[in-house]
This record gives sequence, structure tokens and C-alpha cells, in this order.
Amino acid sequence: MVQIPKQPVPPTPAQRPVPTSADVARLAGVSRATVSYVLNNTSAVRISEPTRRRVHEAAKELGYVPHAAARSLRAGHSRMVLMPTPSVPVGPLYSQFLNELQWALGRLDYTVVQYGSVGLHGDEAARAWAELRPVAVLVPGSDLGPQGVAVLKRSGARAVVTLGPERVEGAHALLMDHDKVGHSAGVHLLARGRRRIGVVVPEEPGLEIFSKSRLDGVHRSLAGTDATATALSLAYEEGAAARLAARWRSLGLDAVFAYNDEYAMLLMRALQEEGVGIPDETAVIGADDLMLGRLLRPRLSTVHIELPSGRDLAELVDRVVREPGGAPESHEVLGARVVHRDST
Amino acid sequence: MVQIPKQPVPPTPAQRPVPTSADVARLAGVSRATVSYVLNNTSAVRISEPTRRRVHEAAKELGYVPHAAARSLRAGHSRMVLMPTPSVPVGPLYSQFLNELQWALGRLDYTVVQYGSVGLHGDEAARAWAELRPVAVLVPGSDLGPQGVAVLKRSGARAVVTLGPERVEGAHALLMDHDKVGHSAGVHLLARGRRRIGVVVPEEPGLEIFSKSRLDGVHRSLAGTDATATALSLAYEEGAAARLAARWRSLGLDAVFAYNDEYAMLLMRALQEEGVGIPDETAVIGADDLMLGRLLRPRLSTVHIELPSGRDLAELVDRVVREPGGAPESHEVLGARVVHRDST
Repeated sequence: MVQIPKQPVPPTPAQRPVPTSADVARLAGVSRATVSYVLNNTSAVRISEPTRRRVHEAAKELGYVPHAAARSLRAGHSRMVLMPTPSVPVGPLYSQFLNELQWALGRLDYTVVQYGSVGLHGDEAARAWAELRPVAVLVPGSDLGPQGVAVLKRSGARAVVTLGPERVEGAHALLMDHDKVGHSAGVHLLARGRRRIGVVVPEEPGLEIFSKSRLDGVHRSLAGTDATATALSLAYEEGAAARLAARWRSLGLDAVFAYNDEYAMLLMRALQEEGVGIPDETAVIGADDLMLGRLLRPRLSTVHIELPSGRDLAELVDRVVREPGGAPESHEVLGARVVHRDST
Repeated sequence: MVQIPKQPVPPTPAQRPVPTSADVARLAGVSRATVSYVLNNTSAVRISEPTRRRVHEAAKELGYVPHAAARSLRAGHSRMVLMPTPSVPVGPLYSQFLNELQWALGRLDYTVVQYGSVGLHGDEAARAWAELRPVAVLVPGSDLGPQGVAVLKRSGARAVVTLGPERVEGAHALLMDHDKVGHSAGVHLLARGRRRIGVVVPEEPGLEIFSKSRLDGVHRSLAGTDATATALSLAYEEGAAARLAARWRSLGLDAVFAYNDEYAMLLMRALQEEGVGIPDETAVIGADDLMLGRLLRPRLSTVHIELPSGRDLAELVDRVVREPGGAPESHEVLGARVVHRDST
């Protein structure tokens, strides 16, 4: 670990005061209201071009920037869309979705703020978010309860939207049910003639909301058949994979859905080192359709996951903000399809 | 792409007004100041336990949450630490650093807010950040200039800290110079007897701030020797890697520093399919020390990167916030060491 030295800093003179819109008004020789109209680009009020220019020049000279909080206090609501940061590392697919969403909300004149909710859970987190008075809150995961939704709404949030496996009372829901991912994998393995299917369940905390649904989906795909699913707990480390591979043949499995492509890569390597033939002896399928799966030998079959378009979600948020109070909407937004390569 | 239907929402009655601290004061039968002392946990003022309880109960009954913006307007500054979201997807190492930093700042009673700066650059971004009146700003990357730093300071930011390869005038700098990463790789390849070294430079936008420094570091490591470095532009896709591998032998290289482990995996697979022997014909080294490097055959040599401790950085931020105005500090915080495996 690289150290940052802990040196004391000698006290120094105070900073200059922060310039306010009153300072800009004084320098430009106009009213504060005019400053506000010009800098907030209000189209309802006609202001001459020379006045506009004077205000902008005065703001520039003073280094004045509008105060978002003061503006939202005056307006009675903010344009802030708050997204708690997911507590688990997100993959490239989800990063791209977030980027697109932020871009689309920015185009609709919202400010997207991600809030690190490290160490806060459920209603406690909702109270912390509420303090920022967002006009909309988009909550990934499944940690928010009906109480938390109520706290957010009471503090002025017009749109509370969850992105997760289940509906939460009072909130709009973009249902991302990973059951479908497991179901697709199970249907594919059945169609390839497999009957004894292992399902990797990561031991790493935070992944349960995905892994449980994926396992449920495999079970659902096998209902009414003679095939069975066996949950296999696995930590993301070489030693754990080697131990699982060492007892592989005693498990009598002919296929494994490895949770995602990274766990699939880990397990596939361990199985190959035990001499387990892939796909003949054991078929392996991952999920997420990462580049690395294409680089493995045999090439890894996977479940490709589709997230909703960030632009569509931004439009939903904007619609609900403009017309709050409608009944909570619920949309299924996760798509899943198998990409068949050589490992199954 | 999964579609979210675009249905109109019928207008509905307005929401109940948001409860204020005045409502809490009225219900509890105390002054607004008392409400503020109790809910902000001010230790300077003695308030009896029954009064404290009455205030908490009234707040709970009304669903009142303090308004962070109003509080910061009264206090003249906020406890908000703003971190613009990096515009490139971050790896697990950086995610962990951010989590630790957020946790440590939370313990010091700061609120960490990540701001999606998609589409905003340089001073324009700094103005958008300044509108939120953060007390501290931590800027990853190298997009902020001296003008932007000045805007942030004028709007009340006491600590502006950059995390990147270079110092920015007026800001504190945690120097993360990736030159060291390339330098370590170059020194290692020289010591393994290699003399004609390829250096992968990703074509993907946003990675230049890392890739340029890493290339510079390789050049620096070779200074005064008879070895040469050749920059190899590469997109992160199979076709591009195959094309590079097809002309590999005409390049006459005996080693390659592949930017990071993911590009190394991509290129190594393509070289292997061209029959290029690794490490005999070409040594390959990556960077970042990801799990996947250990799973490749031959096992991938890599440069392990050490980031500063989030706790140390949180302490630096807190120190500068409490004592602003000191001369900008500058700390080298990136560590790099080679992990030698089988591919070099």
C-alpha cells in the first residue's frame, strides 16, 4: 500500500467569499431576478441581448456559478435524478446502460447524481437519499422497502423506480428478473441432451440477488422432465475451483451452468486440468457474453443478456416526474438468449 | 432491445406537501432551532431527553427528513464530496479503491456523491460540478484545467484533488503515473533477454491517458540500451487481434507488453492460433494482475498495480477541508511491481 504522508498544514488566511447572484446583479447593474432569468435561460421572460451579455460578462468576471440547491429551494423541487451506486462491481454491459441513461437524462435537462451507499441499507439509505431532495430516484438492487419508498415520496421525489427482480410497493418497477437467464441456460442444456445439471452459486456476498434467481430459473426449466439441478457453491479463486474439479466425477453431472462467463472460465480451466472433457463429458455454459468467452478453447457458450435502453428509461422517468401520482407501472425489461458455441 | 411502452399517464391530484422542520416544531411543541439541534445531533447545545424524544417522534410521524441543501445554505458550506464518475469503465481494483474511499469519507461524516459527467468536458464540467457546491472535489483523469480548479474554489470547494498522471495548477495532486507500469514491464523484459519489444496501444477512446504513459515508461526503461520499442495499435476485438497476429513475424519482435491483462489475453490467443510460441518466440506481459491471467496457459506475467488506501485519501481530504489555503500538495501514490509467471 502506498502511503500518503500525514503532515499538519499551517493555518492560512480564509478564502475569499463565494460570489452570489447579488454580486453579479450589482456589477451588471440589473436586478437579481434578471440575473436569474438570464443564467437559467428562462424563455418566458424577454431580456435584451445587451443586458444578457452584461450579465454573462459580470458572472464570468466574478467566477459566479448558479447554486443548484438554492435554485431547487426556490423552485420547490430539483432536477436531480439520484442513482445509488450499485454495491457490487458492475460489468461492462451495465456500465454502458448507465452511461446511456445519464446521457439521455442530461438531454432532458436532469442532473444525474450517483450516491455511494456503502454501509447504508434499506430505509436508512432511503433517508440519506431523501436529504438530497431528488426529484427522481432510480434504485438498482432489491434493498429498498415500501417504508423507504414512502420516505422518498414524502420528501418530494416524484418518481421512485426500482431496477431489480421484484416490485416494491409504491414504486415503479423495471423488473430485471434473472430467472430468465437460468431458464434459457436450462432449456439449452436440456435440448443438448443433458440431464444432470450443476448450477454454480458464487460465494461472494452481494451476488445472491442474481444467483438465486438464476438457480430458480434452471429449476423452472427442468420442471416436468427427468432432469435434475444441483447447486454448487464456489468462491472466485483457483483453489476453490480445483477442489470442486477434484470431486467432479463423483457428482455425476453431465453439464454445468456456471453463473457467468468469469466463473465459467475459472471452472473450465480447473475441469480441464482434471482431464474432464468439455463438452463431451461435461457441457459448460456461462452468462453475460463477455469477450473472454470467445477466447477460451473450446469457445464458451453463454447467455446473452439484454438490458433496457437508457433512453427509454429516461423517458419513463421524465413522464412520471411531469405526471406524478399515477399507479405504479411495472415493466419486464430483461432479455436473455443463448449464444451457442463449442462448450455445450 | 427490450422496449418500455410509452403510455400517457392520466393527471392525478397533487402530492401532499413535503413536511418541513417547521411542521416538526409545531407538532413537537418546540422551536425550529430545537428541531435543528436535535436532528443534527449538535452536541454544543444541551437538550433534555424527553424533548429530544418528542422531536424524533414528531419527525417520524410526519416522515420528515432534513434537507441537505437547506442545511448547507445555512452553514455556508456542505459536507458533500463530489467525485465525477470516470468516463471509462473501471476495473475491480479501482472499484475497490472507490468503495474504501467512500466508506472512509462516510465515517468522517462526509456525503460522497458521484456525478455522471457524460458529455461534459474540462471547464464546462467544472461549472456543472460547482453548481452543487461541494466542499471537496476528487477528479479522476486529466480533463480538469487550472480554470476549472479556480471555478470550483470560487464556488466554495475547499479541497480540489486530482487523481491522474499530472499536476493541475491550484489543485492537490495524487499522482498516478502509469509511466511506472510500462517501466516495470520494460525492465522485466530486458532482464529476460528481450530486445525488440512491441507495446500494445488500445484504439478505444478514453484509454489514452493510461496507454500513452505506459508506452512512455517502456521507452524510458530502454534508454541507453540497444533495445527498441514499437507501438502497436489494437482494437479490443478478435478480428483486429487476428490481423495483427497474421503480420507478427514480419515485425521481428521478441516480446510484447500488451497494455493490460485483457488485451494480453486477446493477443495471446491470436498469436497462439498463428503458431507463435509463447514465451520462446514472443514473451507476453500484461498489467492489472487479474484472475484471468492466472487461468491462461502459459500463465500470464503481469504488472501488479497498487493504488493508495482510500482511508489515507479520506484523511487528506478532511485535513485540507479543515485547513484550506495551504500550498497544493502532491503525492506519488501509484505502485507497480512485476508478477513473473510463465509467459515471459
